[in-house]
Amino acid sequence: MSVKNKIFLVLLLFIPVSLAAHYLEWGELAVFVTAGLAILPLAAWMGAATEEIAVVVGPVLGGLLNATFGNATELIIALVALNAGLIDIVKASITGSIIGNLLLVMGLAMLLGGLRYKEQKFQPIVARVNAASMNLAVIAILLPTAMNYTSQGISEQTLQNFSFAVAIVLIVVYVLTLLFSMKTHSYLYELGIAEAETETDALEATHGKPNMWLWTGVLLVCTLFVAIESELLVDSLEVATSQLGLTALFTGVILVPIIGNAAEHATAVTVAMKDKMDLSLSVAVGSSMQIALFVAPVLVIAGKFLGQPMDLDFKPFELVAVTVSVLIANTISSDGRSNWLEGTLLLAAYTVLGFAFFFHPVPAII
Amino acid sequence: MSVKNKIFLVLLLFIPVSLAAHYLEWGELAVFVTAGLAILPLAAWMGAATEEIAVVVGPVLGGLLNATFGNATELIIALVALNAGLIDIVKASITGSIIGNLLLVMGLAMLLGGLRYKEQKFQPIVARVNAASMNLAVIAILLPTAMNYTSQGISEQTLQNFSFAVAIVLIVVYVLTLLFSMKTHSYLYELGIAEAETETDALEATHGKPNMWLWTGVLLVCTLFVAIESELLVDSLEVATSQLGLTALFTGVILVPIIGNAAEHATAVTVAMKDKMDLSLSVAVGSSMQIALFVAPVLVIAGKFLGQPMDLDFKPFELVAVTVSVLIANTISSDGRSNWLEGTLLLAAYTVLGFAFFFHPVPAII
Amino acid sequence: MSVKNKIFLVLLLFIPVSLAAHYLEWGELAVFVTAGLAILPLAAWMGAATEEIAVVVGPVLGGLLNATFGNATELIIALVALNAGLIDIVKASITGSIIGNLLLVMGLAMLLGGLRYKEQKFQPIVARVNAASMNLAVIAILLPTAMNYTSQGISEQTLQNFSFAVAIVLIVVYVLTLLFSMKTHSYLYELGIAEAETETDALEATHGKPNMWLWTGVLLVCTLFVAIESELLVDSLEVATSQLGLTALFTGVILVPIIGNAAEHATAVTVAMKDKMDLSLSVAVGSSMQIALFVAPVLVIAGKFLGQPMDLDFKPFELVAVTVSVLIANTISSDGRSNWLEGTLLLAAYTVLGFAFFFHPVPAII
Repeated sequence: MSVKNKIFLVLLLFIPVSLAAHYLEWGELAVFVTAGLAILPLAAWMGAATEEIAVVVGPVLGGLLNATFGNATELIIALVALNAGLIDIVKASITGSIIGNLLLVMGLAMLLGGLRYKEQKFQPIVARVNAASMNLAVIAILLPTAMNYTSQGISEQTLQNFSFAVAIVLIVVYVLTLLFSMKTHSYLYELGIAEAETETDALEATHGKPNMWLWTGVLLVCTLFVAIESELLVDSLEVATSQLGLTALFTGVILVPIIGNAAEHATAVTVAMKDKMDLSLSVAVGSSMQIALFVAPVLVIAGKFLGQPMDLDFKPFELVAVTVSVLIANTISSDGRSNWLEGTLLLAAYTVLGFAFFFHPVPAII
Repeated sequence: MSVKNKIFLVLLLFIPVSLAAHYLEWGELAVFVTAGLAILPLAAWMGAATEEIAVVVGPVLGGLLNATFGNATELIIALVALNAGLIDIVKASITGSIIGNLLLVMGLAMLLGGLRYKEQKFQPIVARVNAASMNLAVIAILLPTAMNYTSQGISEQTLQNFSFAVAIVLIVVYVLTLLFSMKTHSYLYELGIAEAETETDALEATHGKPNMWLWTGVLLVCTLFVAIESELLVDSLEVATSQLGLTALFTGVILVPIIGNAAEHATAVTVAMKDKMDLSLSVAVGSSMQIALFVAPVLVIAGKFLGQPMDLDFKPFELVAVTVSVLIANTISSDGRSNWLEGTLLLAAYTVLGFAFFFHPVPAII
Repeated sequence: MSVKNKIFLVLLLFIPVSLAAHYLEWGELAVFVTAGLAILPLAAWMGAATEEIAVVVGPVLGGLLNATFGNATELIIALVALNAGLIDIVKASITGSIIGNLLLVMGLAMLLGGLRYKEQKFQPIVARVNAASMNLAVIAILLPTAMNYTSQGISEQTLQNFSFAVAIVLIVVYVLTLLFSMKTHSYLYELGIAEAETETDALEATHGKPNMWLWTGVLLVCTLFVAIESELLVDSLEVATSQLGLTALFTGVILVPIIGNAAEHATAVTVAMKDKMDLSLSVAVGSSMQIALFVAPVLVIAGKFLGQPMDLDFKPFELVAVTVSVLIANTISSDGRSNWLEGTLLLAAYTVLGFAFFFHPVPAII
């Protein structure tokens, strides 16, 4: 059993601990920390189970499954928070996930990969198609903010209608992106797929053909526990973070996405250190893309049904932060090469933005 | 006679119909719709006549002619609207033309071309020179807006002086761009020219060497009728669009440019479907470039002489929309390849911006 | 003796003249102009001395020396102005130096080089690494402005703390950039170094191996006089420029950087005319990068010790101007080729921004 799995088994103990913390009233901070730790192995196993099932059911259904469950942890936490009315935290976690994937995950992958290899290459064509889709998605989810910020007298209802229209367009684009990558232009992605298959083969070599029903069970159980733990996390979030002296904005933009994206972080960095940068970047960029093209619109539509006024009107500074992240990630990834300095630049950008959200005054934001 | 020409002949009937609608007072909406339809064949024939004359007079004079009359329809509509004092609609139609050419025309060309060919290639060098010129132009025409938006206490007179200075710089740059593409670096554009000549040869094969005087006559008659029809269009515009429940902003940004650019739309899409992407993109990007480098500054200078306070201070959201369009068009065109998904992304961006202008509240804008 | 050196010797006469102007009270305008002229040869000789010493002490120490003294003139003028409490002018000269290097210096180099050579090529990889570092630096120094502009209720103290944190990150990134270019990936820069060495060889051929102690003496004397002349320049600046009818903003953004960067201008243009574009661009982009990664953070930290409330909260329009300059410089330099039109576009952008700062109203800014 790998070191990673041993750590996960230990972290699993935090499921009962977090439940105990909640029912025995050990305090909100204890609940928040233990629930956060308990989610980490669950998210990792959900990811692993999705990939195992994807191998069995074939590329098309598997691709769909990956596309839907790839960000399941974020989506579940966000839905629970949305239902609890923590709309600002939900929105902040959307922008935070995009920023985190582009700067923190991609930066760590390029830095740690670059420390081992002088120069790493990846397919610039796929990088550009992904960048173009992501640019569109990011522009689209930020347009309501830009509209509200640059004009006066826009009613909340108009913003919600506009956000809903944008959400529909984004989901249509998401479906078309899947069609492009899995059907009409799948050959462009072959190298990435080949790398992923090598990973899968290595997996199979160690434990044989995956058992689909076992993994479906794992997926369901993990999903159930993530829901439960997300409730604990969300319920304790406000009190716990204010005890730590953190604002809700900082929590939403920095802390929640790190918990929700931990699995992607691990995968992207691990494969980058094996010089498989195509796979590494497709995890990082693909995850941001899914957030913008799938998770964000689903939340807008869910908000309508949950009776929560969820729209795409972010704080203006979130707009600045996301724009900046996309610009710097584009500049760095567009040439199909990476080195440790480029990784460092991404991490430096993340650090500076982290400072910005840390110093951001509370009352003007939440 | 091609199907296109048959349609044009039928549309020509709308010239007398629109005049009848005007003088017999059938209502502003009828005048608006019929005048809009009547302009379509006139614009197409003006374009055809300009190209025919250009073939006869040689590349240099022909290039100049194309450069001046290429956006004649937009220019005439805008001058008529400017003279009528509809300054906000004139400004909106400038941004709308840029957005429309970059997203709608380029998007349709890439989508419809991409449905027929898996991957289409074009010269990235020309694309980059064009992109750089266009970036400068767009930045320049948006600077007065940015200055006004980010600072307080800027007088209307200062904005007009600044806009006038910007207009002079832009026209100088436009002349230098022509010098570059027709004289010092014409070899870069040879592929595009070769494609255009094939088109012209095909034309000549069907009807022989063009008769210059005939086409000059066509050009003059069409120009005259476009002026007349533009008057009808502009006079009926405000009442008609408010009857349709549309704001003046939406009309200026979305409707007017579609009418004015219909000829470019048809050309760009037709040649894209013949896999001549260089020509297709040069029509789309070249047309935006002409709007920003030639039409917009001419309107500012004309405003000074017509006594209309025309400046380059757009609505802040127009600035956002144009910036976003340029960014996404740059990302997509900079690699010299296109496919149907990239076309779809451009159209999706156009759709989302269309929603934004549709939902934009009226009083804050006009 | 070259024409350049003859001009410098004549300009040197302005050192005593400026001192006379100051002590004999010939008026602030006379002091300002003569001090400005006196700084030009001093800055040039400081640059020359730094390079001569760098040749003797070897690449690593030499690189560090160049990195520290490369923008010594700007740094000295800025420190003197900071100490005199002219914080707005210091900030304006930071943005002005970045804009001037990217648009004016690079533009002149591409234009004059392009008039002699049809197309000039340079290493796109180095251009991209530089562009990425510079993007990060520019984004980082502008984030406090963006934060302040998009949110209410941010205290001056918060802005200073945030600016200080950003300054520390930037200096760390600067050190890592040096490590990258001089140690781990120095081979990427070999072409540029080879060109620089040819320059140096040509220099040595004319006057033999440089005498290190002589040049160290030159460096110290020049530094001393630049300090003195900077005092005169800064003291006379406010009265002199208001006599010329110029605002402090225009002076800081346009005039001061032209004086401080005159040496870079001369070098970049001279080598561009010898078709050594790698060296030319690395001077222009490298100088902007040093301003953003080294000079700006040093000034923030110095402000803390001098008791001057120096932060990175620029005027919003400066943010627009720098963003625009970076975007257009990126577009033009990313393809590794240049021609006269691209140089013209950069100069046109500089002209338009110059107009913008000229027309900028006074009271709202200073």
